[in-house]
Amino acid sequence: MTLIGALDHASVLVFALTGALVASRAQLDLVGFVFIACLTAFGGGTLRDVLINREAVFWIADPGILAVPTLAAVLVFFTAHLLESRYKALLWLDAFALAVAVPAGVAVALDAGLGWPVVILMGVATGCMGGLMRDVVCNEVPLVLKQGELYVTAAFAGALAAVALAGTGRETALIGCAAATFVLRAGSVALGWRLPVYRPRPPRDGLR
Amino acid sequence: MTLIGALDHASVLVFALTGALVASRAQLDLVGFVFIACLTAFGGGTLRDVLINREAVFWIADPGILAVPTLAAVLVFFTAHLLESRYKALLWLDAFALAVAVPAGVAVALDAGLGWPVVILMGVATGCMGGLMRDVVCNEVPLVLKQGELYVTAAFAGALAAVALAGTGRETALIGCAAATFVLRAGSVALGWRLPVYRPRPPRDGLR
Amino acid sequence: MTLIGALDHASVLVFALTGALVASRAQLDLVGFVFIACLTAFGGGTLRDVLINREAVFWIADPGILAVPTLAAVLVFFTAHLLESRYKALLWLDAFALAVAVPAGVAVALDAGLGWPVVILMGVATGCMGGLMRDVVCNEVPLVLKQGELYVTAAFAGALAAVALAGTGRETALIGCAAATFVLRAGSVALGWRLPVYRPRPPRDGLR
Repeated sequence: MTLIGALDHASVLVFALTGALVASRAQLDLVGFVFIACLTAFGGGTLRDVLINREAVFWIADPGILAVPTLAAVLVFFTAHLLESRYKALLWLDAFALAVAVPAGVAVALDAGLGWPVVILMGVATGCMGGLMRDVVCNEVPLVLKQGELYVTAAFAGALAAVALAGTGRETALIGCAAATFVLRAGSVALGWRLPVYRPRPPRDGLR
Repeated sequence: MTLIGALDHASVLVFALTGALVASRAQLDLVGFVFIACLTAFGGGTLRDVLINREAVFWIADPGILAVPTLAAVLVFFTAHLLESRYKALLWLDAFALAVAVPAGVAVALDAGLGWPVVILMGVATGCMGGLMRDVVCNEVPLVLKQGELYVTAAFAGALAAVALAGTGRETALIGCAAATFVLRAGSVALGWRLPVYRPRPPRDGLR
Repeated sequence: MTLIGALDHASVLVFALTGALVASRAQLDLVGFVFIACLTAFGGGTLRDVLINREAVFWIADPGILAVPTLAAVLVFFTAHLLESRYKALLWLDAFALAVAVPAGVAVALDAGLGWPVVILMGVATGCMGGLMRDVVCNEVPLVLKQGELYVTAAFAGALAAVALAGTGRETALIGCAAATFVLRAGSVALGWRLPVYRPRPPRDGLR
């Protein structure tokens, strides 16, 4: 398996688990679990492949990968009740998924010979869009929009790291990308790391 | 007209009617009706065509089809008030639309020579995505997510039937697909057929 | 710069400003501003390019354009508090953006030699979809759906004007398109122009 293939498989697996967990929160049936798992797992990568006009979307080129979200959804359907906190599991799995999906997006964009601004955007979009589709469809508040959490920022920093390290070799760049993304996202979830958010001006009377 | 053309036209017509009904629930103006009707009618098939990289999206290859959702939207705008229950009409029209859109997706995927897992996913996506876009844009609870209703499941069973019957000839497979989808969806709407949904574990104290 | 390039740049700039304003209403951090600005700025044009199968999406063909929404987002992040009313600024910028995005969509569709029904739909979709994605992702009520406002209708009238004027030369057609779109949308925002919306039938007892 190529490196891109491995990243795609890993990201599909972990995003599928998050999709199935969100499906469990929406109390869907088993086929609903598989549907949301596929949407989440394939959303980002499919967008990436359509945008850069790859010959075929990755899961059409390699249909065997469809077994991954299907099995993940079945697994979650029968075991999610064993989890202490489904939301916590969701957050951490989503952080892992982000940290493999961003390098998966970056790698395809680098291979296609695209310039660095497009590589960065493609990394961010591949990383964030699957989870965004999951949350929009299931009516959850998108993780991307959680105030004061590093999410898009983590993806952006990871993609930036990949571009900065591109001269040192492909593997190094992708590992640095995954590490930067995960560390920032994990720091945000566990330790509350954040960037300043936009605040509307204080009220006119200055009382606050 | 080819079989695929006929299925695309039928699915466009019926999905457009559902889109216009949802637009009536959102109290849009006439052009808004046409917009939501087009989104619903073309959403699933457009996604299918983009994903499998067809030469041209079906409504660009055959622009005459744009008259269909336009006329459907005008018709609904002026007659929806005659309906006893718009929601009931919406549910049943949507069931019909699903039952023609799934075989429309399956047929294109089969013609493109794709493997059976992709054929199934393409049938489900073509069937469900138009209605999903309609509901997300119009802020309705997506029919796909209604707890304990067969929706994705009906689409999945239909696509599965098509794959199982593929050896017996294309027409049989597509008819079987439409029939399986419609029977399951109609059974769910009219008779309450359902699959078990995910239930969170009982509370720890066992009192329930 | 070609005419299409100029229209794309103008529409990217103004839509990016609207995206950043919506991000300020959601109180995101700086990278979140850039993300929503890019989504809004590139959403409609990207959809257009994918649908008509252009060789490359416009921001991949010309990556320099990525600087535009980035700078726009930074600008809004640091200055939005100076605005008297962010919502009013949003409404008017969105009206400008619509009035350049519709001709941008129409121009590409005309150059691709598509028939007039497709040209109209492409103009409407390019104009409306970026803002629609912004509003759906950020959980705002989509401007497209605001009852009794001319929005899709303004885009539709503009695209219609372009098709009607196509015989008089490309520049005239696109200017007419922008003018018609803006006048109708501005009239609706400022003066309350509207089309009759769908009204459910009066209650049975006839009391109203």
